[in-house]
Amino acid sequence: MSKTIAINAGSSSLKFTLYEMPAEEEIASGIIERIGLNNSIFTTKYAGEKYKVIEDIKNHEIAIQMVLDKLIELKVIANYEEITGVGHRVVAGGELFKDSALITDEVLAQIESLAEFAPLHNPANATGIKAFKKLLPNITSVAVFDTSFHTTMPKENYLYSLPMEYYTDFSARKYGAHGTSHKYVSERAAEMLGKPLEETKLITCHLGNGGSITAVKGGKSIDTSMGFTPLAGITMGTRTGDIDASLLPFLMNKLNITDINDMIYILNNKSGLLGLSHISSDMRDVEEAAEKGNEDAQTALDIFYNRVQKYIGQYFAILNGADAIVFTAGIGENSPETRQIIIDGMNWFGAEIDAEANNVRGKERIISTPESKVKVLLIPTDEEIMIARDVERLRA
Amino acid sequence: MSKTIAINAGSSSLKFTLYEMPAEEEIASGIIERIGLNNSIFTTKYAGEKYKVIEDIKNHEIAIQMVLDKLIELKVIANYEEITGVGHRVVAGGELFKDSALITDEVLAQIESLAEFAPLHNPANATGIKAFKKLLPNITSVAVFDTSFHTTMPKENYLYSLPMEYYTDFSARKYGAHGTSHKYVSERAAEMLGKPLEETKLITCHLGNGGSITAVKGGKSIDTSMGFTPLAGITMGTRTGDIDASLLPFLMNKLNITDINDMIYILNNKSGLLGLSHISSDMRDVEEAAEKGNEDAQTALDIFYNRVQKYIGQYFAILNGADAIVFTAGIGENSPETRQIIIDGMNWFGAEIDAEANNVRGKERIISTPESKVKVLLIPTDEEIMIARDVERLRA
Repeated sequence: MSKTIAINAGSSSLKFTLYEMPAEEEIASGIIERIGLNNSIFTTKYAGEKYKVIEDIKNHEIAIQMVLDKLIELKVIANYEEITGVGHRVVAGGELFKDSALITDEVLAQIESLAEFAPLHNPANATGIKAFKKLLPNITSVAVFDTSFHTTMPKENYLYSLPMEYYTDFSARKYGAHGTSHKYVSERAAEMLGKPLEETKLITCHLGNGGSITAVKGGKSIDTSMGFTPLAGITMGTRTGDIDASLLPFLMNKLNITDINDMIYILNNKSGLLGLSHISSDMRDVEEAAEKGNEDAQTALDIFYNRVQKYIGQYFAILNGADAIVFTAGIGENSPETRQIIIDGMNWFGAEIDAEANNVRGKERIISTPESKVKVLLIPTDEEIMIARDVERLRA
Repeated sequence: MSKTIAINAGSSSLKFTLYEMPAEEEIASGIIERIGLNNSIFTTKYAGEKYKVIEDIKNHEIAIQMVLDKLIELKVIANYEEITGVGHRVVAGGELFKDSALITDEVLAQIESLAEFAPLHNPANATGIKAFKKLLPNITSVAVFDTSFHTTMPKENYLYSLPMEYYTDFSARKYGAHGTSHKYVSERAAEMLGKPLEETKLITCHLGNGGSITAVKGGKSIDTSMGFTPLAGITMGTRTGDIDASLLPFLMNKLNITDINDMIYILNNKSGLLGLSHISSDMRDVEEAAEKGNEDAQTALDIFYNRVQKYIGQYFAILNGADAIVFTAGIGENSPETRQIIIDGMNWFGAEIDAEANNVRGKERIISTPESKVKVLLIPTDEEIMIARDVERLRA
């Protein structure tokens, strides 16, 4: 028996989940927001209770110290040494990390060197790793990469139609993201279908504020909608997804923008559901506005459904058929309307939603009719347990 | 009876076809290349003979003068006045032109004002129009837009997930291209299928040096793979097709490029089959190199097939099924291997190539098996006759 903590560190936030392993029992969890700003918010969940503290938390090291002290205060652990493993989510693993890795000094340096592929995320991930190393230097420490699951993609899917030397010299290629989530739901889907994972063909739709769709063949990712960065693919909360690159010079000219990074910022942060609707980046708000008759909100929804359908359709093509379509993450788990509209609109493909089964939020279940040739599954994702499992697996 | 000439003017070239209308009989055709450069090449085809002249041709007006004089010299026409109509291909019609238009001074000004959507093409098209106006001021003159056929796209397909005001203020949206070709083959396909055009659902694949794929429902374009410009969509001879926009700042940094237009130039002119293979932008050369074992050439082909399959798959989704997949243009008409590999790789969709029927180049025929649930059609495109027909239709 051992206690393992899964960490997801952002630039100003830190999420954690503490597990009893190998029982995979979730003991406590929490989130610290606004790290480095005034009035940071530290929320812990333990034994059905929620504890909230608001105070200035200067950096990630102090945040982690607070987490550990809180766990002792709540008697979740008696001392730091009870925690024997930590797993860190890392966004970009490039081509280096085809699996999760025990964190050595070399691995940490590699994570930092991959920052050019995830300028906002990898440095924050590295900060979390270093803070933990300082406080708990002797425990098993594992990096779990968002991109590892996608390193099985074949060349024709990960290469862009760019001059070949941009790949060989600069590693410009598709990396994807949300790998841990796509992997988790693929494994669960195979179990629900009662079919060996190696024989399944799945289309997994991770629809959250960020969203990606993956074609999974025999448990391996063969293609995914996010690209070189998470900007590409479907319409997201604030990201455009796929656009014509020629729009960049055109819009920069119209908007008097001279630095392309300012344009990319808009595409990442001011577009998607938010930019189209000017209501919110949150699907629930956009749905509500559309119901009240806001036309742009309805357009934003229509575009969102359309882009998801297009990716499902193209993955049917490259998988040459699929056993099931899987919905997960915030929108995928909690918006029955989204699931219904997407699947109904492409019923030629042989998937048929069972309206009653589909009328649910956040529960693992088959939501297609018994007759449905292609199954539709709702599977709440669990990236944290995947991280904890990898810590166990890689423990020396 | 009247003679109508169809004109396709590029920045340094001019193609023409002369028809006897309404018989739609092709009388003569030709091309002038290297206009404005030394050793311009003027080729005319008439009555089974080919005539070639090499001399310096300074501008489009002189080029057109030479065409007309050649037609008199060859006794195709007795005088200029025998030509009663001219149709000009125009690349960008924006949202202004939902159909072909009689060219007035206002229409000409509008074509010139749309140059920001096609900086290389519309000015050249306008030059051709003006040169003809000067020489033959009194004949019916019609502009036929590459984009008109796509103006029937619904909002969810033509809008990008950008801030909505970029569309309302700057007309930033998907326009597509090759509309005349997609329209022509859709109409032919309906006839070949023996089904009213209004009831057909078609996926038309215009695969040339430039390529685009269109979802056509009831004879109307509902989506197409090219975007705001012809850069987007499938892999092309020298164009990337779809890429992650985040690659632009990354590559500009690596390549020390400071002007985004230089980057867009690479994406348009140095990428695609050419950039991947470093052999050629011509499919035939790339196929030949791949056969001889060139690995990058094979990768370029695999990516090309893959991108076409993905668009066919996504258009099956938004059409919710299709009656037929249509192949046209240079590669689509002349590469049986391409058609076979694309369709075989996605046979789950119910289309089955008849290897024998498919063993043909440039002939209109059904190339799927009699049992094939989704038909596959080979239809040589004819944009010129569509231009001539529109001249007849719009003649006062």
